[in-house]
Amino acid sequence: MSPVPLAVYGLSELRTALLRQDMLQAVEQALISHSQGRVVAPPPGVLLFENPPGDCHIKSGYMKDGSVFVVKLAMGFYQNPSRGLETNNGLVLVFDSHTGKTLAVLNDEGWLTSWRTAAAGALAAKAGAPSQVSALGIIGTGHQAQLQARWACELLGVKRVFIWGRRFGKAQQLAKSLGHQGLNAQAADTVEEVFAHCNVVITCTPSTERVVPSAAVKAGTHIVALGADSPGKQELDPQLLKRARVIMTDDHHQCLDHGEMGHAVRARLITEDADVSLGQVLAGQVPGRFSDDDLTIADLTGLAAQDVALATLAVARLQAAN
Amino acid sequence: MSPVPLAVYGLSELRTALLRQDMLQAVEQALISHSQGRVVAPPPGVLLFENPPGDCHIKSGYMKDGSVFVVKLAMGFYQNPSRGLETNNGLVLVFDSHTGKTLAVLNDEGWLTSWRTAAAGALAAKAGAPSQVSALGIIGTGHQAQLQARWACELLGVKRVFIWGRRFGKAQQLAKSLGHQGLNAQAADTVEEVFAHCNVVITCTPSTERVVPSAAVKAGTHIVALGADSPGKQELDPQLLKRARVIMTDDHHQCLDHGEMGHAVRARLITEDADVSLGQVLAGQVPGRFSDDDLTIADLTGLAAQDVALATLAVARLQAAN
Repeated sequence: MSPVPLAVYGLSELRTALLRQDMLQAVEQALISHSQGRVVAPPPGVLLFENPPGDCHIKSGYMKDGSVFVVKLAMGFYQNPSRGLETNNGLVLVFDSHTGKTLAVLNDEGWLTSWRTAAAGALAAKAGAPSQVSALGIIGTGHQAQLQARWACELLGVKRVFIWGRRFGKAQQLAKSLGHQGLNAQAADTVEEVFAHCNVVITCTPSTERVVPSAAVKAGTHIVALGADSPGKQELDPQLLKRARVIMTDDHHQCLDHGEMGHAVRARLITEDADVSLGQVLAGQVPGRFSDDDLTIADLTGLAAQDVALATLAVARLQAAN
Repeated sequence: MSPVPLAVYGLSELRTALLRQDMLQAVEQALISHSQGRVVAPPPGVLLFENPPGDCHIKSGYMKDGSVFVVKLAMGFYQNPSRGLETNNGLVLVFDSHTGKTLAVLNDEGWLTSWRTAAAGALAAKAGAPSQVSALGIIGTGHQAQLQARWACELLGVKRVFIWGRRFGKAQQLAKSLGHQGLNAQAADTVEEVFAHCNVVITCTPSTERVVPSAAVKAGTHIVALGADSPGKQELDPQLLKRARVIMTDDHHQCLDHGEMGHAVRARLITEDADVSLGQVLAGQVPGRFSDDDLTIADLTGLAAQDVALATLAVARLQAAN
C-alpha cells in the first residue's frame, strides 16, 4: 500500500494561477453549459448548528463533458467575528470524474466562490448593458461589492462608479479603495442618486426587503441583482420585474424559488415563464435587450456550474505549473 | 490575509494514531449516542457518473455534545480495476463545530470506513453472542471479511474461524492469511458447514440475494449481517428474522429501508416494530439475547455516527502527537 500524496493548494497559489480573464471565460462557458443541461448538480446538502449558530453547505457537481467533479463546502458561523475569526470559511475538493481519484484540495478561504460570483455579475452586467454605459452603480458595500465594481468596470470598459450602502461611511470607504485601484468612484447619499447617474447597476446586499424602489429606476437601465441567493432575501421592488422587457435568470427554478423573480411571480406581477436564461443570452441565442430604452434585469442565484468551472480551471493551471 | 495551513494526514499516520481498542470504544459510544438521538446526520448526498460508471457518496454529521463535524466522501468507480486502480476511494474532512474551521483532511483511502464497519461488526457480534462461542463464521472473503475475522475474534476471545465464499480459492486464501495472524482459520465448502461449526457468524458480502438459508441455521446462533448497506442488497433468508428472538438494528429506519429487516417486513414475516436498537443493547438497556438457545440477528447498515466517532478520535490523537 503506497501512500497517496494529496495536492493541497492555498489562496496565494490560487491567486497566482487564476487570471481574471480566464475566470470570466470559464464562468461564461459554465453559464452556457448550465442553460444547455450539460451540468449535473444534485440538491445541496446542509448541516445546521445551534450553539453557536452556524451552517455548512455542501454543493457538488460536474460538467457532463468534463473530466473532474467538485465538492464545495461553505461554512458560516455567525458568532465568529466576536472571537476575531472570519464568519465564512470554505474548502473546494476536486476529483477525477473517471476514477474518483482526489486531484486537489483547494483551501481557498471562500475566494473561489467570491470570484465565480464576481465573474457571473460582470458577465450579466455586460449581457444586458445599453450600448453606452454612463457609469456603474453598486448597491452594497461588502466584499462582493468591491469585486463587482472592479470586475464589471473592466468588462464594461467604464471607470465611473457610484456606490450606495446603508452606512454612508462604508460606501465612502469602498469608493476610496476603488480609487486606489484606478477607478473614479464616489459614495451616493441615496439609491435614487445611484440610479440617476448609472444605467448599469449591480445590487449585492444581504437584504431581506426591497432596497431598490421602482420609481428610482428609469427606462434604459440594466440591473443585476445578486443578493437573493437563498429564501427570504430580496433587493428589488417586484414592480421592476413587471416593467422589465427582459428578465434573464441564471437558473429558472432557483430564481423562481428564491430569486427576485420568485417575489414578482408570487405577487402575480409576472408569469412563471417571464424569463430567459442568462446562458442563452451569453451564447447569443436570445437578446439581452432589444433597445437602449429597455429596462432589463438579471437575476442571479449562483450555480454549481460556476464552482465546477473555476475549480476545473484552477486544477488545470496548478497542475501545469507544477 | 495570512495563509491558513491545512493539516493533511495520510493512511500511515492514521494507522499509527488509531489503536483498535480505542476505535472499538469510540464506535460503541457512537452507536449508543445514535440510539439516544444525540447525533445529527442529514440524508447523504450522491453524485452519479455514467461513463465510466461511478458514484460519490457524501455523508456528514456531528455529535450534539461534540466539538467537531465530519464530512465523508466515498467514491466507487467500478471500472478502476481494469486500469490497475482501486475501485474505492475516499476522504474524510474534520471541522470545528463551533467555528467552521477546517481541522484536518484525513486522506484515509477508505480505511476509516473499513475500521468503523469492523468495529461495529465486532461489537454487534459480542452484543448477541451466546455464553460459549464455538467458533466464528465469516460469510464473504473480501477486505471487510478479513477485518471482521480479526476484530471479532479478538473481542470475542476466540481463535477458530470458518470462512465461506462463492469462490473456494478466495476463502482458502483468506484462511491462510488469517493463519499468519495467529488465528486457526479454515475455508468451508458450504454455508451450511460454517453454521454447523459456528454459533456466531458475520455475513459481509455484496450479495443482492439471500446467501444464508434458514435451514442452515440452528437455534443458539447469533448472526451479524453487514452486507445490506444500500437498497437491493440482501444476505439472509427473511425467515431467519421471523425465527429470531432478538433483532438488533443499528438504525431502525435505515434497516427498514434497505437492511435485512426491510426484506422481512415487506415479506410480512415480521412487524415494523420487531427490532431493538444495537445502541440500547450495548448500553445494557435491553438484552441482546435471553438464553443460549435463542437465534439472534444484528442488522447493520452503517451510521454517520461511526464516521464522526473515528474522525474525532483520529484528530484528537493526531493533534496530541504533533
